[in-house]
Amino acid sequence: MKGAQALIGALVASGVEVCFANPGTSEMHFVASLDGFVEMRGVLGLFEGVCTGAADGYGRMADKPASTLLHLGPGLANGLANLHNARRAGSPVVNIVGDHATYHKRYDAPLESDIESLARPMSGWYRSSARPEDVAADAVAAVEAACGPPRKVATLVLPADVSWLDTDAAAAQTVAARAAARRGSLAFPPQGDQVPIDLVEALSHVLRSGEPTAVLLGGRSLRERALLAASRVTATTGARLLSETFPGRTERGAGLPVVERLAYLGELAAKQLEGLRHLVLVDARVPVSPFAYPGLNSELLPAGCEVHVLASGSDDVAGALEALADTVGARQDAAVLRSAERPGRPTGPLTAAAAAAVVGSLLPEGSIVSDEAITAGIFFSGATEGAPRHDWLGLSGNAIGQGLPCATGAAVACPDRPVIALQADGSAMYTIQALWTQAREGLDVTTILLDNASYAILNFELKRVGAEQEGPAARSLLDLSNPSLDFVKLAQGMGVGAARAETCEELGTGLEQAFAEPGPHLVHAVLSRDSGF
Amino acid sequence: MKGAQALIGALVASGVEVCFANPGTSEMHFVASLDGFVEMRGVLGLFEGVCTGAADGYGRMADKPASTLLHLGPGLANGLANLHNARRAGSPVVNIVGDHATYHKRYDAPLESDIESLARPMSGWYRSSARPEDVAADAVAAVEAACGPPRKVATLVLPADVSWLDTDAAAAQTVAARAAARRGSLAFPPQGDQVPIDLVEALSHVLRSGEPTAVLLGGRSLRERALLAASRVTATTGARLLSETFPGRTERGAGLPVVERLAYLGELAAKQLEGLRHLVLVDARVPVSPFAYPGLNSELLPAGCEVHVLASGSDDVAGALEALADTVGARQDAAVLRSAERPGRPTGPLTAAAAAAVVGSLLPEGSIVSDEAITAGIFFSGATEGAPRHDWLGLSGNAIGQGLPCATGAAVACPDRPVIALQADGSAMYTIQALWTQAREGLDVTTILLDNASYAILNFELKRVGAEQEGPAARSLLDLSNPSLDFVKLAQGMGVGAARAETCEELGTGLEQAFAEPGPHLVHAVLSRDSGF
Repeated sequence: MKGAQALIGALVASGVEVCFANPGTSEMHFVASLDGFVEMRGVLGLFEGVCTGAADGYGRMADKPASTLLHLGPGLANGLANLHNARRAGSPVVNIVGDHATYHKRYDAPLESDIESLARPMSGWYRSSARPEDVAADAVAAVEAACGPPRKVATLVLPADVSWLDTDAAAAQTVAARAAARRGSLAFPPQGDQVPIDLVEALSHVLRSGEPTAVLLGGRSLRERALLAASRVTATTGARLLSETFPGRTERGAGLPVVERLAYLGELAAKQLEGLRHLVLVDARVPVSPFAYPGLNSELLPAGCEVHVLASGSDDVAGALEALADTVGARQDAAVLRSAERPGRPTGPLTAAAAAAVVGSLLPEGSIVSDEAITAGIFFSGATEGAPRHDWLGLSGNAIGQGLPCATGAAVACPDRPVIALQADGSAMYTIQALWTQAREGLDVTTILLDNASYAILNFELKRVGAEQEGPAARSLLDLSNPSLDFVKLAQGMGVGAARAETCEELGTGLEQAFAEPGPHLVHAVLSRDSGF
Repeated sequence: MKGAQALIGALVASGVEVCFANPGTSEMHFVASLDGFVEMRGVLGLFEGVCTGAADGYGRMADKPASTLLHLGPGLANGLANLHNARRAGSPVVNIVGDHATYHKRYDAPLESDIESLARPMSGWYRSSARPEDVAADAVAAVEAACGPPRKVATLVLPADVSWLDTDAAAAQTVAARAAARRGSLAFPPQGDQVPIDLVEALSHVLRSGEPTAVLLGGRSLRERALLAASRVTATTGARLLSETFPGRTERGAGLPVVERLAYLGELAAKQLEGLRHLVLVDARVPVSPFAYPGLNSELLPAGCEVHVLASGSDDVAGALEALADTVGARQDAAVLRSAERPGRPTGPLTAAAAAAVVGSLLPEGSIVSDEAITAGIFFSGATEGAPRHDWLGLSGNAIGQGLPCATGAAVACPDRPVIALQADGSAMYTIQALWTQAREGLDVTTILLDNASYAILNFELKRVGAEQEGPAARSLLDLSNPSLDFVKLAQGMGVGAARAETCEELGTGLEQAFAEPGPHLVHAVLSRDSGF
């Protein structure tokens, strides 16, 4: 048995079923070994950022990691921005990075670079396999690290000779069998550590103190079980229920608890937090401004607001919220649920708000929404609140180029659910190659390409930072209209059917067709220039 | 004066005229300040790998650095693969990476990451500006580090507050004026250190020993002055004249010295080196196999071959070769020059060899060729050897996704010269966004998109690595035909005129039109499937 086979066998035994791959020469034994494992699906991406973003989207929806397969330092580097997002979203990802043969590294061949230095900033776990005898156990350790809690990006470097050399098959199979048994016998993925009852009781006192209090949900606390418990807590105590701005995955829509999302802009978020005396964090971080601005505070909490942590890291988040709900004396049915309500379907010019209403009026039940709509997207969250139940995947790490790959991975994880990518034009162009993978794999992704012909958020930020000398040179660096991008042609060039929409009617018709047919589609929604976005 | 203005002023005073930018919020003061400096041209890239690859191409052709402008760790990460190539090519690049405000970093805001850890592997010089008072001197130091010798990728991190805070204008202008004076008074860029005459004399003895000897040229030694001297040396002594496989920039064509390029495949390169007793390196590295393979040597030199270094690092390469030529007693006109000769223009099916002949028959005088043709490209070097004088830019770092950005930067550096991108299909898709920048800037780039519908080199490598179990899963990860990529639509979607060519006649006609018209063009050369590539 070759090292590559021991590796794939251990991944499969650990529950990894998909490998988002962009391989090169040093990964050829891994690639060649794939045919021996029907349980492992290889999915080709034409750029590494597609592979890592897809692994992120897959991890968010499958609740277990996919692997990537990347080619040495430069290949890893191309995937780092979306690994940054995965890290911030708390997604489980197993990154496999091929390397030169161990004995070849000292020659500093052209593709040699310091992989560890590149990988560490985006990896919660890192190892380089030294010998074929180690690789099965290393792979199991990588998957277990990725699964957490807390979930991590785990990066395993696979030197070419560790991949191609023989190792003892029985020993590797034993390692794999033990991993499979652990996976079968425990709750998988692990639920985490129970939060001490003392802490729960202390926070129960805070919540019942009558002082202005909010519960801030992040990470794993935006899933149904945790949401219901959190809503019981706040409905019973009168506290407010908030969520982080861009959680990795939120279960939402009609029949699920109502949660108020913190605004992206620091000033607006600070307004939402105004007057609070207590903030209870649940797998969430203290709110800060995404960027610093001259004369504005980085911290958003009001002075004197006390911060409490109910659960974080390796804690059992849903269990902690349920314990808290019981301790504050919440009834089982106390959660405040969103009623079913869709916006009316608008007609006429395609403003950002109208586009959001069209989407809200049509969003299919069980959808998965990959949200990289940026500026144009601020209306979409509200317009879909009362739509049938769906999942919302946010840009947790703020590194653009996530939307299309994340949608791709979500569709691989959930082949029976419609996936909708709400995609801004500027950020679409970072990883537009994802459309090709959607076409190859026949994934049911509908991309709504929201075209305002600019990096609109930066035009806004240019004013906000207090820059004084804005002129044509500055404005041209934020403008995407010269030449304009024809996303219909770009999609068709990669095998994805596409249509252009300049009115609400055209967007509605385009979406109805896309939702009715299997496979990927793109609707190029050209926003009217007077829409302000 | 704001820090951003001090920075740009210092860059301009140091001779930096172009900034390849993909900015975000933290870079808005830099962007806003651009309008105050007519000497600095901002060029927008839709993806950071386009910006860094363009800066590389610009540096190779302009012999001085452009700057980039990138957005924090993830933005830098997206540009690292082409910085790796720039590093390997010895290109001068000044990387400006925006960061959070110094006081904001401790909040670990969503885009925060360890920029230094990401930057170091690809940067020969790294600094983060701590205060607006430092930024002018830091910028000057970055440019001087980039210019070398040896040339480097210099990365300067610019925190947002260092950019927006005021600093003393007179002090910053003094720093800038000193840099401008240094640039004016010295040979710029510096020629490097003189090689000791003892070394030259010792190597002269080696070359005249009658033992089998080769001179291996790399880096800066493939430019006219150095080439002529090297050819005088080898013509006089009977030594062979070789070049590295993928030098950053080679001046070649009719009237320039003939140099034999080392093959990419280790086995073939080892054959070229067979029997050598001495190898004299000139800004070149000891040849090694790009990858390790089971049972093959990483080292390519024959046993007992002695390695000598004439010049490297900060040495004056051309001066050393001229001293050596004089010392071996070479006549001034001893260089062996290539005679003018073009291949006949073929007709019929478009094989890779035929496509190369079409290009060789038409290559315009003074062309700059960005070569990322990979497998399909092995015929192009030979077919253009006797074409009118041109420059050839190679994939020095072996990290694919360089070709289109490098062509873009070369065209910005040399607006009066035709640029030709020989571009393989698989590698084109990593940084296809470069076409948009070519359209926006009206750059005279003709992309010849060589489509063999696969990662052909990997199909080849799959066999070479001795992988045994190749099957449909493996083959599908190397195949680009399902769906096929329509590069005409992709180019048109980004504003670049494009045509499809399936015969030699169509390729010839397409190139003639492209060469006759200003601005960017793409010819999608669909190679016939029986061409073997």
